[in-house]
Amino acid sequence: MTVAEHKRKSAVGPGAAPKPDSILVPGFRAAGIHAGIKKNGARDLVLVTADPPARVAGLFTQNRVQAAPVVISRSRIRCGLCQAVLVNSGNANACTGEPGLRDALALSQALAGRLGIEEESLLVASTGVVGERLPAANIRKALPALVRSLRADGLLDAAEAIRTTDAFPKLAWRQSVIGGETVTLFGMAKGAGMICPNMATMLAFFLTDLNAPAAALRKLLRTGAARSFNRIDVDGDASTNDTLLLLANGRAGHRAAAIGTRAYDAFAELLFPMMEELAGMIVKDGEGATKLVEIRVQGARSAHEARVLAYKLAGSPLVKTSFYGQDLNWGRLMVALGCAGPAFRPGLVDISYDGRAVVRKGVSAGRKAEERARPILRKDRFALCIDLHAGKGAHTVLTTDLSHAYVTLNASYRT
Amino acid sequence: MTVAEHKRKSAVGPGAAPKPDSILVPGFRAAGIHAGIKKNGARDLVLVTADPPARVAGLFTQNRVQAAPVVISRSRIRCGLCQAVLVNSGNANACTGEPGLRDALALSQALAGRLGIEEESLLVASTGVVGERLPAANIRKALPALVRSLRADGLLDAAEAIRTTDAFPKLAWRQSVIGGETVTLFGMAKGAGMICPNMATMLAFFLTDLNAPAAALRKLLRTGAARSFNRIDVDGDASTNDTLLLLANGRAGHRAAAIGTRAYDAFAELLFPMMEELAGMIVKDGEGATKLVEIRVQGARSAHEARVLAYKLAGSPLVKTSFYGQDLNWGRLMVALGCAGPAFRPGLVDISYDGRAVVRKGVSAGRKAEERARPILRKDRFALCIDLHAGKGAHTVLTTDLSHAYVTLNASYRT
Repeated sequence: MTVAEHKRKSAVGPGAAPKPDSILVPGFRAAGIHAGIKKNGARDLVLVTADPPARVAGLFTQNRVQAAPVVISRSRIRCGLCQAVLVNSGNANACTGEPGLRDALALSQALAGRLGIEEESLLVASTGVVGERLPAANIRKALPALVRSLRADGLLDAAEAIRTTDAFPKLAWRQSVIGGETVTLFGMAKGAGMICPNMATMLAFFLTDLNAPAAALRKLLRTGAARSFNRIDVDGDASTNDTLLLLANGRAGHRAAAIGTRAYDAFAELLFPMMEELAGMIVKDGEGATKLVEIRVQGARSAHEARVLAYKLAGSPLVKTSFYGQDLNWGRLMVALGCAGPAFRPGLVDISYDGRAVVRKGVSAGRKAEERARPILRKDRFALCIDLHAGKGAHTVLTTDLSHAYVTLNASYRT
Repeated sequence: MTVAEHKRKSAVGPGAAPKPDSILVPGFRAAGIHAGIKKNGARDLVLVTADPPARVAGLFTQNRVQAAPVVISRSRIRCGLCQAVLVNSGNANACTGEPGLRDALALSQALAGRLGIEEESLLVASTGVVGERLPAANIRKALPALVRSLRADGLLDAAEAIRTTDAFPKLAWRQSVIGGETVTLFGMAKGAGMICPNMATMLAFFLTDLNAPAAALRKLLRTGAARSFNRIDVDGDASTNDTLLLLANGRAGHRAAAIGTRAYDAFAELLFPMMEELAGMIVKDGEGATKLVEIRVQGARSAHEARVLAYKLAGSPLVKTSFYGQDLNWGRLMVALGCAGPAFRPGLVDISYDGRAVVRKGVSAGRKAEERARPILRKDRFALCIDLHAGKGAHTVLTTDLSHAYVTLNASYRT
């Protein structure tokens, strides 16, 4: 999909489809340029600024190995205010030790000086290859051009520049009237591989002119992530760099959207579907993916067990290659469920594809039922439902198939 | 590898390499024929008989979904005696419910009658597609021919007939003098996909004329499996059908090899390396595998944590595709370790390939060190060692890469 096609598809505003240059969020400027990190000359450095300073909430990777920018931003975000975000793609600045931390801090200091803002109010994020030092000299040299490139309509450049193996830029844009004022929300994300529970190899940034306290933003982000970015799995590895930020600069001027207010709920209605939409784009762009599969496990003894079982299915190479092969091999689902850990009675299990029963009480629902379900496997997207009939626990994850293209992409990513 | 090549390589007896027809174990006969289960006309039905009746020990899948033959054999093996084993390939008779259980019981009854043995002393095993009923009529019709085909030198046919997606038959044969008598041990296995801790999609049968009580056989099997079949992982799914049997008919006539005797230890020395050898063959034959990688995690806080971390690496598609791509992408190892669960200090981690350090204290050991290690990635087999420097826990697993051929094989297995 080209950027232009993507825009037509996703950046749907409240009225007529907006022209690309009409994606603006009052009070935010952005830039995305090439700074010499990626070897192919593509854009790889992003700056977003907020004026007035935005209140901010963030979620970061749960991986025990944390990239330098994650360590820095996790600490800085506690102050709750953010004036700028510096992002680079092409290099994760992870597993780079003290020198990597010094690289990130030095760049942050140089940029904050140039912008005339407090270093503490500058957040940083990186994505790309793990284990290599940042080309810090290149980035430092590019900072003046980066700042000069800042534009109110620079968000598309930014969405373009945070890509690594992404096949297309991921962005969405919406407006809504909240507290009598028009509130704008823009979201962009990157991620295609290392997609797992607890986010992904994922950067996602949401920018809005909503007026809300940081506590409300934190709750919105947690609640929204639980039903979007934390429900997707491409290949079972959560990266060292996952960063999800929500910046709200208050420019819309309505009464503050504190937790429990109508304005909070109205904004949640704007934000959550957009988070789900961007999470869906990430899975759809799962490296080499040809299919998007929603896996629901219900009737488990607990929500936790449903989650364990759903992720086991989403992560099983045997299950994922059978999706790719459009093969109604429900036996592999039973096998994967059976070795996931949680106890269940195989003789009670029902399995359906897009609502068509294939397994009833642990055995085939019959040749005819299988024949009826087979065409579903040829669809780009379908839903698989496993009912254990053991309780009320349920969990849904979005995953992809495992294709030849996945192997090609990942066997040759770095060398 | 052809059967003949394989025989030259693996079936190495104590003296000169034996001719194929010299693989005999006193008191055992075997047959492997085509009974109309596999559609391609290949051998798919195996019978092994023991005279005198063998003492027997068995280990079965830990999957919560258990195939009908596993349910039956697990129950029958408690009596500790076995006179025959009936095995089919091409159909797992799993997820077939009560009808599947009745199929297996009816075949078992018919065969026991024909052999004139107690049904309880007949064990059964199946491997192949999950979720389809056995072609029981075909099998029943083939039983007379199966019994007529029994021969003392039929073990090669049996090893051939238990194959499913195996690229080559897996067998080994050894002799040793124990308690003054020559003891013979033959082992055969099948397995290539669904290979995981707690065995594999694996059938393995060891036949010997050792004289030993069932308790000794059970301990030998448990101990040997812990260091062989339970240390391999191809794709993280343990099947519904895994069955590992050790039959000892006592024909060698020495004093019983009870636990704690010299004879027990001598037999363990014969058995354990053979179990490791067959387990290695299974991993090497991992569907589409081009490489065999030994992953050792050491310096963990406990052996359990070392095991969790080692299996996380062995199961990560990102790690496995980097093996396939011969890509020294150690960052993916750090990422996978970091999201495996156990806590560790990234800044203490050392990683080496075949003893060459690539990561020291969590960061690259330098360009030159990486260059020196790079050729190792091109080898068919290499060892990866991760030291967490946090304790004395260690665990080693054998795994494979994830290749295009894996996807091809598994996307088209059933349809």
